Amino acid sequence: MTRKAAIIGGGVIGGGWAARFLLNGWDVAIFDPDPEAKRKIGEVIDGARRSLPALYDRALPPEGSLSFHDGLDDAVAGANWVQESVPERLDLKHKVLAKLDQAAPVDAIIGSSTSGFKPSQLTAQGARAIVAHPFNPVYLLPLVELVGDRDQCAKADSILRDIGMRPLTLRKEIDAHIADRLLEAVWRECLWLVTDGIATTEEIDDAIRMGFGLRWAQMGIFETYRVAGGEAGMKHFMEQFGPALSWPWTKLMDVPEFTPELVDLIATQSDRQSGQMSIRQLERLRDDNLVGILRALRRNQAGAGKVIADHEAGFPPLPHSDQLIETVHRVVPSSWTDYNGHMNEAHYLEIGTQATDRMMEIVGAGPDYIARGKSYFTVENHISYLAEAKEGATLRVTTQVLAGEGKKMHLFHRIQNGETLVATMETMLLHVDLDSRRSCPPEGEVAEALAQLATRHTALPRPDQAGRHVGQRA
Amino acid sequence: MTRKAAIIGGGVIGGGWAARFLLNGWDVAIFDPDPEAKRKIGEVIDGARRSLPALYDRALPPEGSLSFHDGLDDAVAGANWVQESVPERLDLKHKVLAKLDQAAPVDAIIGSSTSGFKPSQLTAQGARAIVAHPFNPVYLLPLVELVGDRDQCAKADSILRDIGMRPLTLRKEIDAHIADRLLEAVWRECLWLVTDGIATTEEIDDAIRMGFGLRWAQMGIFETYRVAGGEAGMKHFMEQFGPALSWPWTKLMDVPEFTPELVDLIATQSDRQSGQMSIRQLERLRDDNLVGILRALRRNQAGAGKVIADHEAGFPPLPHSDQLIETVHRVVPSSWTDYNGHMNEAHYLEIGTQATDRMMEIVGAGPDYIARGKSYFTVENHISYLAEAKEGATLRVTTQVLAGEGKKMHLFHRIQNGETLVATMETMLLHVDLDSRRSCPPEGEVAEALAQLATRHTALPRPDQAGRHVGQRA
Repeated sequence: MTRKAAIIGGGVIGGGWAARFLLNGWDVAIFDPDPEAKRKIGEVIDGARRSLPALYDRALPPEGSLSFHDGLDDAVAGANWVQESVPERLDLKHKVLAKLDQAAPVDAIIGSSTSGFKPSQLTAQGARAIVAHPFNPVYLLPLVELVGDRDQCAKADSILRDIGMRPLTLRKEIDAHIADRLLEAVWRECLWLVTDGIATTEEIDDAIRMGFGLRWAQMGIFETYRVAGGEAGMKHFMEQFGPALSWPWTKLMDVPEFTPELVDLIATQSDRQSGQMSIRQLERLRDDNLVGILRALRRNQAGAGKVIADHEAGFPPLPHSDQLIETVHRVVPSSWTDYNGHMNEAHYLEIGTQATDRMMEIVGAGPDYIARGKSYFTVENHISYLAEAKEGATLRVTTQVLAGEGKKMHLFHRIQNGETLVATMETMLLHVDLDSRRSCPPEGEVAEALAQLATRHTALPRPDQAGRHVGQRA
Repeated sequence: MTRKAAIIGGGVIGGGWAARFLLNGWDVAIFDPDPEAKRKIGEVIDGARRSLPALYDRALPPEGSLSFHDGLDDAVAGANWVQESVPERLDLKHKVLAKLDQAAPVDAIIGSSTSGFKPSQLTAQGARAIVAHPFNPVYLLPLVELVGDRDQCAKADSILRDIGMRPLTLRKEIDAHIADRLLEAVWRECLWLVTDGIATTEEIDDAIRMGFGLRWAQMGIFETYRVAGGEAGMKHFMEQFGPALSWPWTKLMDVPEFTPELVDLIATQSDRQSGQMSIRQLERLRDDNLVGILRALRRNQAGAGKVIADHEAGFPPLPHSDQLIETVHRVVPSSWTDYNGHMNEAHYLEIGTQATDRMMEIVGAGPDYIARGKSYFTVENHISYLAEAKEGATLRVTTQVLAGEGKKMHLFHRIQNGETLVATMETMLLHVDLDSRRSCPPEGEVAEALAQLATRHTALPRPDQAGRHVGQRA
C-alpha cells in the first residue's frame, strides 16, 4: 500500500525530504505558502532524479504522486509522516506544530527538521513532535538525527531506513544535537582564520577537502585516530595527544564578532573562489561528487555506502517473464557517461556482468556457492552497440541461455531502453575450481538448473547477433 | 637525474613521506634509531604500493632506491629534501634541526612535520627549517601545510607538486596551522559528547561520515554553505546563520578534563566499535576507501581528484615501440577486482577503452578534435580472456590497426602482464558527427594519419583472435 508524507515548508530542506520520499515510492503532499514553492521544490526533485537512482544497481520503486496544497489540513490528511521544515524560530515552530498535531492522523510521525531546538522546547506547549534533523542534500546524505519520545523515535527509525536513510537516535537531548555542534565549532574557528588573515575561504576549503575531509567521508574522527595510533591502540593515541588539548590552539573560547565587514570579506572571497559557477552548476557538481564517493564506499561496504547496499538488498526480486529472464533493471548514472555525451562502452559490459551475476544466482551459483570454492570465469565476450544510452536512462536486460552443458555457460544479454534495443552481449563462461584455478564441471544442482533453462531457451528464436564476429556484414 | 630525500624519524608519518617520495621515483635514505624502524616503515611502504599507483591511469615512474642509515650525516648527504618527523617536543626538534642544518646541503629544503609548532619556534636557535605538515596517510592525502621563509616555501611548493601533493602556504604563522585548529575544535567537542553521554564514539563517527564528512571530502565548509545558501548567495547565508553563533551550542569555551576515566571510556567504546579488526585491516579498508573516493573525484576533476589528474598529465608520453604502439601502461587497482579474486571482466574493456582513446589522440582525434564536433563511436567489441590479472599487476597494452579506411577504425589491443598475454580486444569504431549523431568520414589529417598506421600495421602478422566469434574452436 502506498504511504503518504506531508511536507510542511519547502526550501532546500523540505524539497529534499519531498524528493527522498517521492523517489522511494511514497505519495508526497506539500504545503508551502511561498508562491515560488512549486518551482523551487521542482528543481530540488529534478536534482534528486538525476542522482539518487544513480547510487543503486537496481531501479528504485516507481515514484509516488506529488501534490501541492493550499491548506495545511488538506496536505496532512491521511499522512503516515509529517515533516515540518519552517524557519528556525521557536514561536513559529510552536504555532505550526500545534496545527499539525490537530490535523495529522493520531498514528502519524511528526518530525521537525530543526537543527538547533531540543524536543522539550518543541513540545513545550503540548504538541507532539520529534526532532528528525537531516543533512543537505537530503536525497543523497543518509544521516538523520532523531531526538525525543523513545517510541516515536523507534517507529521513525524503521520508516527512515525504508527510504534508505541512516537514523541516529541521540541518548539525551542537547542543543544543536551532534553534527551541528561539531559544525559550529569548525565554523567559528574558520571565521577567526579569515578574520585574522591566516587564509582565504578557498584555502580553508582546500585544507579540509585535500586532507581530513577525505578521511571523514569514510571513518569519522575516532576511527581515524584509532588507525593513526597504530599498533599501540586507541589508549596510546589518547595519552599521546591528550596534553595538546590544553595548548592555546583554538580561539574558540571567543566568539568572533559578526560584523558587516566580516560578512563582506567572506562573501567576497567566496565569490572569487567560485563565482564563475552558478548555484545550479555547483549543486550538480556536488551531487556528482557525492554519487561517485557513495558508489566508491558502497563497493567496500563502508560507511554510507553500506547503507545503500543494505537498502538495495531489501528491494523485491525482479519478476520472471514468461520466457526470457529479466536480469537487470537500473538507471544510467552520470558518472557512466563520457566525452561523447553517452554511456561509455565499458559500462555496457558492466551491465552485462551484472546480468551474468544474476544468472549465476538463478542457477544456484551465487555468493554461497562461490564461498564454497566454485565459480564461473568469463572467457569471451562480444558486444554489439546498437543505440546510444544517455544519463538517467532506465535500462532493462533480458537474458537467454544459448547453451549450458558440461563446463560451459553460454549466455546472450539484450540491453533495452524502453522498446529500443541499445546493445547485445554474447558471453561464454567456464566453470572453475577456485583453488586450482582450473576448469571443472559444476555441482549437480547447478548443472541441472542450467540444463533446464537451456532446454527452454534454445526453443526460442536464436538472436541475430549470436555467433557474430567483429566487422561481419549484417 | 634522480633526486634524494632524507627521512629523519620514521613512524607512520616518516614512513608515509618515505613512500610518497620513493614511489614518485626519488631515492630515499632513512635515519631512525627505532630498532623496529625497518619493519614499521616497510609496512607503510607496502600499504603505499598497493594504493598510490591505483589512483593513476598511468604507471608511476620506477621506484627509487631505499636505504637505512645508522648515522644522520650519512642519510642527509646529497639530499634535495630533508624531512624531520621526530616526536612533538620542542627541545628535541631544536637538537635535531641544528644537526640537520649542519649536515644537509645548503640548497636542501629542511621540512618539519610538526603539527603544532610555528616556524619562528623551530628556527629560534638559528637552524633553517620550514613547516611541511602532511596528513596521514601521507602517500594518499595530497595536503601539506607550508609555513615559514617565503623563498623556501616557494621552492618546497614546486617539489611537492612534482610528487603529486597539494601544498598550501599559510599567509601568517599560527599555532597548529589551519587544519589542526579545526580538528582540535571538533575533537574537544567530541570529548564532551562522550563525557556527557550524548553519544558513543561509533555514533559520533556515524554522525560525521553519514553526513557532513561526505560533503567535506569534496567542497570544504565555505563552498558547501555557499551551495546551501541557494540562489540568495553567500551573504544571505551568512546573515541567516550568523546569529546562531552566539547561541550556547558549543561547549568549547571549556576544555574537558583529560581524566584516566575519560581515556578508558573512549578506548573501551572504540574497541567495541572496531576491535574485531586489526589495525592493518583498518588501514587497508581506509586506503581502499580513499582510493575509491579519490578516483570518483578525479572523474569530476574535483578537489583532490583534480590534483591527481593534473599530476598525471605531467607524466612523460609512452614510448613508441618499433612496430606496435604502446597505448596503456598502468596498475590494477584493488577496486577493480571481484568475488573471484581477480580483475573483473568489465575492467579489461575499461583498459581497452583507454587504449582506444590513446589511439584516437595519436591519429589526431583527441579532445580538441572532439570539441570541434567530430568523434569515433564504438560499434562492436570482442574480448578474449586468456589469463587472470590480480590486484597490483602492471599491465601494458599494445595496439595494432587492422584497418583504417573511410568511416571505419578497426583496432586490436593486446593486454600483457610482463610476458603473459592476459587478454585481447578487437574493436570496431565508426567516425561520427556529434551534432547529427550520424556517421561521416573523418577530417583529412585524421584519415591520413590513420591510413599511414594501417599500412604499416597490416604488414605485421594478423592476430589469431582477430575475426573470432564467441565459442569458436581455437
